[in-house]
Amino acid sequence: MMRNKRRGLSTIRFAQPPELRAWAAVGGKKESEGPLHSAFDMLFSDTMCGETTWEQAEMHLQKCAIYTAANKCGMPVERLDLLLSGDLLGQCIASGYTARGCRVPYAGLYGACSTMAESLALAACMVDGGFADTVCACASSHFCTAERQYRFPLAYGGQRTPTAQWTATGSGACILGPASGTNGVNLTYAAFGRVQDYGITDANNMGAAMAPAAYETIRSLLSDTGTHPSDYDGIYTGDLGEVGSRLLCQLAERDGIDLTGVHQDCGTMLFDARQDVHAGASGCGCSAAVLCALLLDELNEGRMNRIVFAGTGALMSPTSVQQGESIPAVCHAVVLESGKGER
Amino acid sequence: MMRNKRRGLSTIRFAQPPELRAWAAVGGKKESEGPLHSAFDMLFSDTMCGETTWEQAEMHLQKCAIYTAANKCGMPVERLDLLLSGDLLGQCIASGYTARGCRVPYAGLYGACSTMAESLALAACMVDGGFADTVCACASSHFCTAERQYRFPLAYGGQRTPTAQWTATGSGACILGPASGTNGVNLTYAAFGRVQDYGITDANNMGAAMAPAAYETIRSLLSDTGTHPSDYDGIYTGDLGEVGSRLLCQLAERDGIDLTGVHQDCGTMLFDARQDVHAGASGCGCSAAVLCALLLDELNEGRMNRIVFAGTGALMSPTSVQQGESIPAVCHAVVLESGKGER
Repeated sequence: MMRNKRRGLSTIRFAQPPELRAWAAVGGKKESEGPLHSAFDMLFSDTMCGETTWEQAEMHLQKCAIYTAANKCGMPVERLDLLLSGDLLGQCIASGYTARGCRVPYAGLYGACSTMAESLALAACMVDGGFADTVCACASSHFCTAERQYRFPLAYGGQRTPTAQWTATGSGACILGPASGTNGVNLTYAAFGRVQDYGITDANNMGAAMAPAAYETIRSLLSDTGTHPSDYDGIYTGDLGEVGSRLLCQLAERDGIDLTGVHQDCGTMLFDARQDVHAGASGCGCSAAVLCALLLDELNEGRMNRIVFAGTGALMSPTSVQQGESIPAVCHAVVLESGKGER
Repeated sequence: MMRNKRRGLSTIRFAQPPELRAWAAVGGKKESEGPLHSAFDMLFSDTMCGETTWEQAEMHLQKCAIYTAANKCGMPVERLDLLLSGDLLGQCIASGYTARGCRVPYAGLYGACSTMAESLALAACMVDGGFADTVCACASSHFCTAERQYRFPLAYGGQRTPTAQWTATGSGACILGPASGTNGVNLTYAAFGRVQDYGITDANNMGAAMAPAAYETIRSLLSDTGTHPSDYDGIYTGDLGEVGSRLLCQLAERDGIDLTGVHQDCGTMLFDARQDVHAGASGCGCSAAVLCALLLDELNEGRMNRIVFAGTGALMSPTSVQQGESIPAVCHAVVLESGKGER
């Protein structure tokens, strides 16, 4: 056993790295006004996406991402062996109700904003282990569903603090299969993170709560793989925002690891300064959309060779915050490599 | 690829079936008064389990289950390669906060009451694929946290309908590793379910909502493995309750499959009639506790040879119910076999 993982290491190495066959990114109105607008597969200018509730709109975003990705690799969704997906809502309804429509085997995940990385890591294990031929990894979020889930009714018009992040309205979906040598992106390593909690209790400063989890997983991945930050074209976290990104680099610097220059955060890439989102974007849909809109295309087209995609999730709930609990966070990471350089 | 799964089948066959090394079941006051009381590893007569909130009490149940299981196989919890767990609460806080204390790699799941089966199925894939040497699969629920999550504040004293089920206060945890030939229970097959929705909108009749999902997964498992109900010492669903159990047998009968006699439901085993729970027990913790308190010991001691453990989850949320959505449900199943007969 342990053919893929050396004892004592947290990082899984895939002997025959699963291939990302296709991917799709879907976004909302604010995303359509941001710097990545032209990279999305589909954008909605209507917050409801033509549905009657925001929750249904989020389900629609997931559905569009999954069906667009499946369409790109020329397979009907019903042919999927497994759908692994999650979102921020109580009881993960955006994912469960979307899975109802897909009619494929479905395993629900909860990793908060780390969900896209969690689903990719598990999907790669399912493919490399020979348990599934095609797996879809998906995550979503919606600004309006998240606001009423975590904060205030939107109509209340509460003022946002400087450290607050803006939940992305969007979804990303990737379809993974066994390596065929014909496609451009492979998933070579995966690391499931340990939960970290440095005692942050401010639910409007999730970047600070998540930075230690991001650092722990990235440090462990670099150490296990014997690589340095400079071995990557980018170490992309999602979503620490501006505050959390600064803290991540400071934590790394303390241990003599220089992440500046190579580290970028999906939460600071989705929107630009004039969009007034304060510390950046967040939500499962942010890193999922940035990955599927931008990063995978860069790898696929050979403009980047190797990146770390490190999803970070804050695991509190409105109940735990009301009860005075601090905010635990987790970070799952995968290494994605372009096949262009090797072939 | 596909060494473990034949193309076109939904059921995964493990070439070297992972072994359940140890397990533990923890329960609350009502569970301590029920027919399985003597089978639990630990019982709390205090609803708070000595904590200050019900949510913390549920975290304590999970923690006790995980640590007791680890202790039984003589390993420190910190040695786990992966913890796969979930619960019913918004943002799965019982699991996320418990994982914080365990300090091991953690992937959060959401499968409602199917979570124990989902975590066992994924854990077996992680072990058989060589991605992890020891994985803990865990789930929990707590009557009081679930009532305030899904229904009314407990102080309101709402009357329960005849079809309502009583959420179990409890947790179960299993530790899986590669087959060693020394232990008595192996996980031989796993099937991830497709979401089913027959249009039930009564959140107090989840048995009816879940029965079609249970039937679909059991039918598919029997067909894929070429087995008949009589090949098993029991087909245990968790948790359809009395109403859902009758519907499951009716759905099967319509297709000429006789489940009566071999089918039992964890929701009808945890409490007895004089405990006034109406249609039975429910909650992630119910099937997790019945499995870990009773079924695995029966297999381990050779009193049963082979069972299907089919976890059923209703994937609605308070929000989706308020919005008039019907209740989708999923069922994941695993086949568990005693090694006693073969060695």
